[in-house]
Amino acid sequence: MDLNSDLGESYGAWRMGDDARMLDVVTSANVACGFHAGDPAGILDTLRAAADRGVAVGAHVGYPDRVGFGRRKLDPTSRELVGDVIYQIGALQGLAAAAGTRVTYVKPHGALYNTIAQDLRQATDVISAILAMDPSLVLMGLAGTPILDWARERGLRVVSEAFADRAYTPQGVLVSRGEPGAVLTDPAQVADRMLGLVQTGRITAIDGSQIHLRADSICVHGDSPGAVVMAQAVRARLDAAGVSLKAFASPVGT
Amino acid sequence: MDLNSDLGESYGAWRMGDDARMLDVVTSANVACGFHAGDPAGILDTLRAAADRGVAVGAHVGYPDRVGFGRRKLDPTSRELVGDVIYQIGALQGLAAAAGTRVTYVKPHGALYNTIAQDLRQATDVISAILAMDPSLVLMGLAGTPILDWARERGLRVVSEAFADRAYTPQGVLVSRGEPGAVLTDPAQVADRMLGLVQTGRITAIDGSQIHLRADSICVHGDSPGAVVMAQAVRARLDAAGVSLKAFASPVGT
Amino acid sequence: MDLNSDLGESYGAWRMGDDARMLDVVTSANVACGFHAGDPAGILDTLRAAADRGVAVGAHVGYPDRVGFGRRKLDPTSRELVGDVIYQIGALQGLAAAAGTRVTYVKPHGALYNTIAQDLRQATDVISAILAMDPSLVLMGLAGTPILDWARERGLRVVSEAFADRAYTPQGVLVSRGEPGAVLTDPAQVADRMLGLVQTGRITAIDGSQIHLRADSICVHGDSPGAVVMAQAVRARLDAAGVSLKAFASPVGT
Amino acid sequence: MDLNSDLGESYGAWRMGDDARMLDVVTSANVACGFHAGDPAGILDTLRAAADRGVAVGAHVGYPDRVGFGRRKLDPTSRELVGDVIYQIGALQGLAAAAGTRVTYVKPHGALYNTIAQDLRQATDVISAILAMDPSLVLMGLAGTPILDWARERGLRVVSEAFADRAYTPQGVLVSRGEPGAVLTDPAQVADRMLGLVQTGRITAIDGSQIHLRADSICVHGDSPGAVVMAQAVRARLDAAGVSLKAFASPVGT
Repeated sequence: MDLNSDLGESYGAWRMGDDARMLDVVTSANVACGFHAGDPAGILDTLRAAADRGVAVGAHVGYPDRVGFGRRKLDPTSRELVGDVIYQIGALQGLAAAAGTRVTYVKPHGALYNTIAQDLRQATDVISAILAMDPSLVLMGLAGTPILDWARERGLRVVSEAFADRAYTPQGVLVSRGEPGAVLTDPAQVADRMLGLVQTGRITAIDGSQIHLRADSICVHGDSPGAVVMAQAVRARLDAAGVSLKAFASPVGT
Repeated sequence: MDLNSDLGESYGAWRMGDDARMLDVVTSANVACGFHAGDPAGILDTLRAAADRGVAVGAHVGYPDRVGFGRRKLDPTSRELVGDVIYQIGALQGLAAAAGTRVTYVKPHGALYNTIAQDLRQATDVISAILAMDPSLVLMGLAGTPILDWARERGLRVVSEAFADRAYTPQGVLVSRGEPGAVLTDPAQVADRMLGLVQTGRITAIDGSQIHLRADSICVHGDSPGAVVMAQAVRARLDAAGVSLKAFASPVGT
Repeated sequence: MDLNSDLGESYGAWRMGDDARMLDVVTSANVACGFHAGDPAGILDTLRAAADRGVAVGAHVGYPDRVGFGRRKLDPTSRELVGDVIYQIGALQGLAAAAGTRVTYVKPHGALYNTIAQDLRQATDVISAILAMDPSLVLMGLAGTPILDWARERGLRVVSEAFADRAYTPQGVLVSRGEPGAVLTDPAQVADRMLGLVQTGRITAIDGSQIHLRADSICVHGDSPGAVVMAQAVRARLDAAGVSLKAFASPVGT
Repeated sequence: MDLNSDLGESYGAWRMGDDARMLDVVTSANVACGFHAGDPAGILDTLRAAADRGVAVGAHVGYPDRVGFGRRKLDPTSRELVGDVIYQIGALQGLAAAAGTRVTYVKPHGALYNTIAQDLRQATDVISAILAMDPSLVLMGLAGTPILDWARERGLRVVSEAFADRAYTPQGVLVSRGEPGAVLTDPAQVADRMLGLVQTGRITAIDGSQIHLRADSICVHGDSPGAVVMAQAVRARLDAAGVSLKAFASPVGT
């Protein structure tokens, strides 16, 4: 099982998250590429810290919307979206090379992540962008959504992820942030849920029913208060249960 | 001899230069990387057009100052400048791969170009950035300036360039744009000067004296009115004189 | 009748439109505010030229999306949209004061214009922003759309506009740009249509039927090739027919 | 005596400083205008909080360099700098009107602040910008620097400020941040120094000598850890000594 988190999201004088401590916990780091967050010097610092710890690096590509942190729906043309995705992955690859590591996967961020989970046109653009510049990159997507199949059909390797601190509907979809109970805040409860998911492939939905969820990676958020504590709790519970944690794609060349 | 020009400098809805026509003339294209100019989709178009014609591609990296077109002096820290240069080269490498070509050299733009020609600290940062991410890249610099030696000493391959449409002082330095006679506008005169430079290694300075100038490439500007006409005049004169024009670094892998 | 056009849309080194010539034709100038286009120095030049000619000035506020020229749908929160609209109007008011004129109206741009024509939530945000900072400002909107009523109900003065170079459906809605015949390019035909509209309050729809259209202003575009020629043709036809052209809101204080 | 601090410097999802608590301490708030920091919605929040407390508002205008937080030297033309300053003041005036307050002064930020303290050309541009758009605005500058005289000669009202947490040279100039002892961190010591300055017009320089310093306002920084605690210490010491603290310019119209 892989444990991933969003990192490199500081910007200039503004700090976000505690990358150094989070990199001691996770096995894969989704690193911002400068469009929704991250400046080159700060990204490079995070990449060096990831390289030091042998943590795998993914390109956390987003819409070009820094003030909105990539969380707002945008409507780019295919031409624009393809270009934006390639540009960001390339920039991160350059910085990763300088940090002595390499980019092994792509995890879109925020509104782009949510959009391509369901929207065939934008999903196709992201997939085409990856195929055009480096088809060896793995695409990480939301467990149970069509993007995973669309990407697989085009020949990309995919991994699916579950969100540690989010509630699921009986249909296996994330409960919207605005609804009551959507976000889980108790580290012990979250750790229990994730261990259960890993051991049984099932998780308790918000209505109490048990649902199947196929996940290759668990996402622990990096930007909320208490993020590191929760990530540590999940990691500790999995470690204690003997679950082997490692990245799905090694930062060292094959 | 190589003929280079600054391209890919449109931005979103704003056009600059005529990349398609200029790519029919030059052998090397300095392509904007998004910091002083260029958006990913537009850069990708330019890279595809360069790939189609077998024109070599260089990373035209600049200060992060779009509204100033990278022409204003800026005072980044080493940490910032190193990160910015790597980021831009990486982004262009990604787009170049998608366009079926590759980045073979780096030519800093505008105020960064002028600054590193003489400023050891910022020059060192640019050189370090290139060495850290891809030491096979060639650095293009202004003929007769210290940056060429500084880069050579660090192990980088360098090429020097002369400016087709600019006057030189008796010391071999460009006459500042603000001074009378600094910019040459007659295509025939410019073409004659460049043929003379190629054949003799000398050029007439603004005071009428003959100076030596070692140049591996000639820069014809891409963003001024009449730019294509002047580039065509230089190319035609060199072609007619039997001067072989080709890029110093092939876009096809060695 | 008022004649308006989008101006001030250059950005740094990038030119767009011919503001000086267009200002000789129109009676109201929708001036970019820096979010979709326009830099402060360039906007100030345009405002001075407008002031010299006694052309009224409107704030052409847009989404914060320069690379997309404000033409892409965005999904800001109310808090963000209210802030963005006030910020842009205030910035233009400051520049207008320095240019010896003042902002008399607001015309949202591009995707924001189209969105608020129909979307109550974003329309309410724009209206609230204007009311909060200067309720004397007039709101310009698309003839026949709900935004005009929504704004009027909140106490804003509104003006409606027709687009000179666009076809209309039998329902009085603009034919989408992508469809055949959506954009008219013959200056004489466009001038005839606009004179007919002014004289009869009716216009021929794309299916040949006559529709009623209540318009206080005619928009001639400023950024396409031939824009000035078409604007001049419309102006000349209206002048020749004795139609009095003047801004609906005077740039000189009441 | 006036107590001022830099506020409104969050940006989108990134937080900086604790504006609400600092506004309980200071009498004047230098509010970011979006170029070095601040987004419209966040600035509006800060302005409303300032209005609630009757704290005066100044425009904290900066270079257009968000990633560098306006701390890097830049070399704008006069045309650019004049436009940028007017734009920022106007934007803040618009937001202030919506918040029920008004902008009464201008305090340039970071590298712009330091540059205009000594550089006549850029100082002249800032002064010209203020005069062109609203000559009733007061300019705040560093005590003992030429900008104060230059502005006064042009007819602007000026106020001078001392920095609470910074050491001074025997010549009355700030010790550069890089040097040992340049930044003071002990709240009690800083409070003592400021009370002494207010009562005697003198302050102890870094070499132990006593220097005269004419200051109308004391700046307490808002973005460092412990900033609020230090500001509270200064305020408490001055309050206890019976020093009357109030803004030099009232937020309520004259």
